[in-house]
Amino acid sequence: MDYPNYPNDQAPGAPVRSGIPEHGRIPKYYAVKAQVAALIDDLGEGGLLPTERDLAVRFDVSRETVRQALRELLLEGRLRRQGRGTVVAGPKLEQPLSLASYTEGVRRQGRTPGRHLISLDRFPCPPRLAEETGLERGEPVWHMERLLLADDERVGLESTYVSVARVPRLDSDFDPDSSFYAYLRDRLGIGFGDADERIETVLATPREALLIGTPPALPMLLIHRVSRDTAKQPLERVRTLYRGDRFSFSAHLSG
Amino acid sequence: MDYPNYPNDQAPGAPVRSGIPEHGRIPKYYAVKAQVAALIDDLGEGGLLPTERDLAVRFDVSRETVRQALRELLLEGRLRRQGRGTVVAGPKLEQPLSLASYTEGVRRQGRTPGRHLISLDRFPCPPRLAEETGLERGEPVWHMERLLLADDERVGLESTYVSVARVPRLDSDFDPDSSFYAYLRDRLGIGFGDADERIETVLATPREALLIGTPPALPMLLIHRVSRDTAKQPLERVRTLYRGDRFSFSAHLSG
Repeated sequence: MDYPNYPNDQAPGAPVRSGIPEHGRIPKYYAVKAQVAALIDDLGEGGLLPTERDLAVRFDVSRETVRQALRELLLEGRLRRQGRGTVVAGPKLEQPLSLASYTEGVRRQGRTPGRHLISLDRFPCPPRLAEETGLERGEPVWHMERLLLADDERVGLESTYVSVARVPRLDSDFDPDSSFYAYLRDRLGIGFGDADERIETVLATPREALLIGTPPALPMLLIHRVSRDTAKQPLERVRTLYRGDRFSFSAHLSG
Repeated sequence: MDYPNYPNDQAPGAPVRSGIPEHGRIPKYYAVKAQVAALIDDLGEGGLLPTERDLAVRFDVSRETVRQALRELLLEGRLRRQGRGTVVAGPKLEQPLSLASYTEGVRRQGRTPGRHLISLDRFPCPPRLAEETGLERGEPVWHMERLLLADDERVGLESTYVSVARVPRLDSDFDPDSSFYAYLRDRLGIGFGDADERIETVLATPREALLIGTPPALPMLLIHRVSRDTAKQPLERVRTLYRGDRFSFSAHLSG
């Protein structure tokens, strides 16, 4: 059977390709991008892309045009740099939006989670943090900043704010390359009750791009979380930045 | 009381500014961006930004450096173009990740939702759509594409795929500038049961950018939804693209 009228190249998650408005033009780089995308599908994950020069010859366009097409495919996570070449990237990691930790989400996809401590500070809780979390103004809080890894690839950066009174020995008792949630649960008997999350897309700052090892201004997914324990007491405020080319988030909604 | 050690300028949602790694450099445009961001805070929503030329003089940098800083602030939704000027944008609209419709979410924020029909086609259900939704291969399906508006501002683009058998008179009986969910519920007695959603960041295609009226390659939030009715029967497959500079999504999570 033939499906001649399906507007999205038979892929309902893909953008509509037909029906460019009359006053629209398809930019040349975008036509090249579509051709490279087809090539990506043929090559499959890990496949090595021809060089910019070869692609420019093949599509009869300038190298700058090829470069623009590849830049978008890299930003979108369809391609990735490997050594001096460019290869077809694997699918985005899909994390559940749930109280489960980063650790569990990554493991569920058969990847090995890791974390690398960037900084650990303590300071008096400032007014805005107090307002957001319900902690007392001026009470001592920890700020722990960690790189998130999946199979040794740097994929995100997380800032956790938590009361020192709740986690007094965070600096001496906790291995920063382990799950903070497992530590809370298993060592301190603190269980997660509920959380408010907000997700948005932002550009990485130069510092963040440097730490995560992404191109500057790569679109990132930023998740804000404010959580409470099972007794409804304020627990933590977390700001987690995930590479937009490597992550998606899923949720199951019911009525 | 003074909070001298708070690393995020007292804003826990903001990126950490201190602690640039030793081998890092703050690019000049980024220093300008930080100064313009402070100016944005002073001006407040709707405030008119000085011209590029004035900013270049004020910060003693080239106009190209100013332009790069403004480009990022525009992409992030801190600024927006208005006529020939640039003004401070309002906060992002915060939509709940829930079975509630776009319409309800926008109304809850005191904005007026609108929709504008781009196209309505019917065609036989292709294999991938059948697989994703549980519809029969080859059964007739509608594809309805609509622009999403908030107070007449174009903010998104939505593709809805739904079985013709479920909604036989979509082409004649439904006002495309109204809530599809209200139509299902009030006219056809179909209630939403549950849905799977996936959220990611993508770049707008040239066609999408043209339709939504955004700069090309603006980071967007893309939400995929597959929903079922209260009897667990397949209902719709939706692909909604929201301006990344205008929207965030929130969820309440519990254990």
